[in-house]
Amino acid sequence: MRAVCSSCGRVHYENPKMVVGCLVEHDNKVLLCRRKIEPAYGLWTLPAGYLEVGESAAEGASRETLEEACADVEIVSPFAQLDIPLIGQSYIIFRARMKTPSFSPGSESLECELFALDDIPFDSLAFSSIIVTLRMYIEDVKAGNIKFHYCTINKRIGAGPSDLRSFDIDNHLAV
Amino acid sequence: MRAVCSSCGRVHYENPKMVVGCLVEHDNKVLLCRRKIEPAYGLWTLPAGYLEVGESAAEGASRETLEEACADVEIVSPFAQLDIPLIGQSYIIFRARMKTPSFSPGSESLECELFALDDIPFDSLAFSSIIVTLRMYIEDVKAGNIKFHYCTINKRIGAGPSDLRSFDIDNHLAV
Repeated sequence: MRAVCSSCGRVHYENPKMVVGCLVEHDNKVLLCRRKIEPAYGLWTLPAGYLEVGESAAEGASRETLEEACADVEIVSPFAQLDIPLIGQSYIIFRARMKTPSFSPGSESLECELFALDDIPFDSLAFSSIIVTLRMYIEDVKAGNIKFHYCTINKRIGAGPSDLRSFDIDNHLAV
Repeated sequence: MRAVCSSCGRVHYENPKMVVGCLVEHDNKVLLCRRKIEPAYGLWTLPAGYLEVGESAAEGASRETLEEACADVEIVSPFAQLDIPLIGQSYIIFRARMKTPSFSPGSESLECELFALDDIPFDSLAFSSIIVTLRMYIEDVKAGNIKFHYCTINKRIGAGPSDLRSFDIDNHLAV
C-alpha cells in the first residue's frame, strides 16, 4: 500500500507487520503475561511483539518471551499463523519450552503465570488472536494431535472496536 | 528498526516484509514462472510477491498467482515459512490447486510451465527461497507425507551476492 509522508510528500510503502510470539509449554500449562502497557492494559496475553529486521520469526518470538516474561526459551515447532487483514497484522506463534523453568514479569508485564488449560482466563484475554490461538491449542491438546494452523481473523460487521469476541475465523487450514 | 527519512528527517519504522506465494499442484507437477522482470530476469520461480495491507497471506498468494500465471487457484494448505533475516524478508508459501486447469504468462512472466518433480530446473531457479521450498516439497512428496516447514535461510560467510546456492538452512522445524 502506498502512503504519502504528510511531512515531506515522499511515498513510503506500507506492508503488513508480523507479530511473533511463543506458546510456552510447561507441565501441561502455558505461560501468560498480564499487560502493563496499552492497549489492553491489565489483560492476559502470550508473550509476543513486532518482528524486527535482521531477526528470524523464531528469534523474534524468543526475544519477546525473554523481554516480557524473562523466560529463556527454545522453540519447539511452529504452531499458527493468524492474519488480521483489517489491521495489517499477521501473528506467527511458536510452541516453546523454557530452558530452565524460570520466569518473572519483564518491564511490560504486571505478572506472568502458568495456567492449566482449564484455567485459562478467557474473559480477560487481551486480543482476538490470543483467544483464537489458545482455543486451537486446547482443542489440539485434547485431541492428542498438535497441528500447525493457518487462518484469517475478520471482525464481524457491526462489531465495535472494543468488542474483542465478535469475529469470524475464515480460511482455517490445519496441517 | 528505526529509519530516518533522508528527505524530511521523520522516523519511519522498517519491518520485515512478507512475500507470499503458491506451490500450484497439478497432475503430480508444479507450476513455475520464468521472470520477465529484474531481479533474476529469465530465471524460474514460484508465483509470489509482497503481501499488501488489507489482504490475508492466502489472498495475497492467490492474487500473485493470478497476476503472474493467470491461474485462478484455491489454497489447499500452508506449506512453508522461510525467513531470510539478512534481507528482512519472510516467505509464506501455500499449496494450491487450479480451479480450472488453465494458466498463461502474466505481464511479469516470460512463460509459465508445469514441471514434473524430476524435471524442475534447479540450475535456473531465481531465489534461494524457491530452491529450498522445492527441495522440501520433493522430499515430502517422495516420503508420501507433506508437512508444514519453518526455517531460516542464512547466507554462508564469504558468499557473493549472486551466489544463490551458498546458504545454510537453520532452525528447520516441520509439523
